[in-house]
Parts: sequence; structure tokens; C-alpha cells
Amino acid sequence: MSKPLLHSYFRSSTAFRVRIALNIKNLETDYRAHHLRLGEQRAPAYLTLNPQGLVPSLELPDGTVLTQSLAIIEYLEETMPEPPLLPADPILRAKVRAVAQMIACDIHPINNLRVLNHLRTCFGADDAAIAGWFRHWVETTFEPLEKQLSQRPQRDRFCFGSAPGLADICLVAQVANNARFNVDMSAFPTVQAIHDACMELPAFRDAAPSVQPDAE
Amino acid sequence: MSKPLLHSYFRSSTAFRVRIALNIKNLETDYRAHHLRLGEQRAPAYLTLNPQGLVPSLELPDGTVLTQSLAIIEYLEETMPEPPLLPADPILRAKVRAVAQMIACDIHPINNLRVLNHLRTCFGADDAAIAGWFRHWVETTFEPLEKQLSQRPQRDRFCFGSAPGLADICLVAQVANNARFNVDMSAFPTVQAIHDACMELPAFRDAAPSVQPDAE
Repeated sequence: MSKPLLHSYFRSSTAFRVRIALNIKNLETDYRAHHLRLGEQRAPAYLTLNPQGLVPSLELPDGTVLTQSLAIIEYLEETMPEPPLLPADPILRAKVRAVAQMIACDIHPINNLRVLNHLRTCFGADDAAIAGWFRHWVETTFEPLEKQLSQRPQRDRFCFGSAPGLADICLVAQVANNARFNVDMSAFPTVQAIHDACMELPAFRDAAPSVQPDAE
Repeated sequence: MSKPLLHSYFRSSTAFRVRIALNIKNLETDYRAHHLRLGEQRAPAYLTLNPQGLVPSLELPDGTVLTQSLAIIEYLEETMPEPPLLPADPILRAKVRAVAQMIACDIHPINNLRVLNHLRTCFGADDAAIAGWFRHWVETTFEPLEKQLSQRPQRDRFCFGSAPGLADICLVAQVANNARFNVDMSAFPTVQAIHDACMELPAFRDAAPSVQPDAE
């Protein structure tokens, strides 16, 4: 193959992150969907590429397979520095990565599909309990995130500065996910405004779940 | 203050990660404990430093506060490159970060104290159910991790190479956590061997929960 191959699922918010980064870096890829609700990510052929059975994976033309969305995005940043997804200053880089990890560590994994399914299995959680769980973990982290972003002295259009980066990528993918569980975004106006500013850009719009080849 | 100040809790595995990295980089810090089970991380003074109310935070001498363990470690790596916690090659860097994130995203957040407490509140989970939950998420990720590490062609002493790095830091902190919930490590001999090799090194030993000033 000549182009990298993105293993994705339209609704996966971690795959959404990588799709945005690929678009910002202007790296054309082929797309292969793995339907998570049908369990296609656990097919033996896919498990040989990604033993965790998770999307996304980025398969490079030489056969190297990269996994974990933030590791893939850092790889793209290191090998294709322009346009940058991280600022140059080490303190600012740490601030951007911290916002990304607030979402990528403290919200998304706890609300991932397989965790929600396990709540149903272990504790008999019904749809209302699942939605309550989801919203609880979003709100627990979006409250300090909103506070932090609303207090930025510059009131930038994006999380940090006048161009979107790693923090915005994670923020947008999480906000898109929130809509499925009716998170009340009125408490998070700065987060919402940054999401909306990002979604005006083709790199974000073209990465959205609804316009992927496997969208339902 | 002249030295950075680490906000920590002896038992926090994310603080453990940062303590190891600080030791490897040979950066001396002051230590302030916040007792998580007593809720000290939600004291107003601490929330002004870290609005998430989580440990660790690294407060620099100029007052800058860095949060999120992996962001702090990447900052240490960028500002104090020796000895390195990441290899030079971008593909290898992505592989190391992916292993770190398998633990830092796919295990730790789901098994964090506040999530376990929420399971008790929401679903009436008892100690046995909590322990089962914890082990489930460790095993879900340790199985592919063990497979990946056991198939390394070089059979290095550490995850990637002859010196410990970011992946080892996350691995060791997770294995230490596992002991509290009786995870059967006999299924993960390569992970255990890497943990044991790391714990022979003073940088890891001196960062262990049991030797911190606030250890119980």
C-alpha cells in the first residue's frame, strides 16, 4: 500500500481525534471501518495488528502499526511538524497536554463503550443509570476545564492561541460524544464556543463521525 | 521556594509515576502530601493550584503549576533530556507512548479511587465487586500488554531497551497498585519481570509508596 491506512469506527471519539490530526497535517490515508457494536475489532486479523482490539490504529505503508490516539498524534507532530499541534514552549506544551489528558484520561476511558457495557453486565445498569454515569464523569472534569479555559487572559478562539491543537482535538471529540448522552452544555459555554470555532474548520468538519464512510 | 514542590499522595499511582521520573532525572523536589481518603485534595487552597483536585501537581519555583502525570513527565523529558525516558526514533517513541497510554488511559482511570467510590454510591458495589471490577480492567489490558512484551525480539530487561523509560514508569506504578486488589500476576510473567528489574533501581525504589513521608 502507498498511503497509511486508518483503522477507525465513525463513532469512536479516539478515532475522531486522529482523523482531525491527519486532516490538520494534510496526510491522506485510506480508511477501514471496524464496527465496534458488532465486535469487528475483536476479529483475529485485526487483533494481530492491534492486540488490544481497539480503534484507532494507523498502519503505515511499511507495515508498522501505531496504536493509542495520543501516541499516534504525537508521532504525526514529530514527523510532520507543520502546522503544529503543540506550541514550542515547554511550559505551554505541558499545559496543552494536560488539557488533552484531562479528557483522554479522566473522561473518555471511564465512559468508553466497553466500560458502559460492563456496568450493564456487572451491576445491571439500565439506560438511565448509564447516561447518569456518563454525565457525571464529563461534568466532574468539564467543570474545572471550563473554569480554566474561561480564565485565560487572552480569550483565544481555541484552547491555546489562534490555531487549533492537541487540546482542541480532544475537546471537540468529547463534546461530540456528549451529545449522545444529553450532557447539558449550557454550563460549559467556553468549551462549547471552542468546539464551535473548531467545527467551522474543514479539518474538523471532515473528520466528524457523521461524514465517515461507515456512518449510519 | 528554590526547589520544585511535588504535590503527592503516597498511594497515588500517578504521583508514583512522577516521583520515579523526578528521580531518574535527578531533580530534587520538596514534597507535600494531600491525603486523598480524607479529601485533602479538595481543600480550597489546593483547588486554586489544581482545579481538578487531583494529585500529582508539580509546582515550579516561579509558581507555575503543572498537572497530569504524563504531561509533567513529558515536560521533564523536554527540559532535562538526560537520561532519556523516550528513545530518539519517532516510531519507537510512539511505541513507548502507546504502552504508557495502555496503562494511563485504559487501566488506571477506570480503577481510580474516585471511580471505585462512585461504583459503591451508584450501584451499591461491595468490596468483592470492586475488586472484581479492578481486576477485570487490569486483565483486559495486561493480556495484550503481556503478549506484546513477551514477543519483543530482543527480550530487553526493560520494556524497550536496556534502560527504563516512560513505559516502565507506568508499568511499575500499575503493578504496585495491582497488589492491593490481589491481581494474579502469574499470568503476566514478562510484565512482572520488568517490574522487578525496575524495582532493583534506586530511582524506582525511592519513589515507592511505602517510603514516602506520608506512608501509613
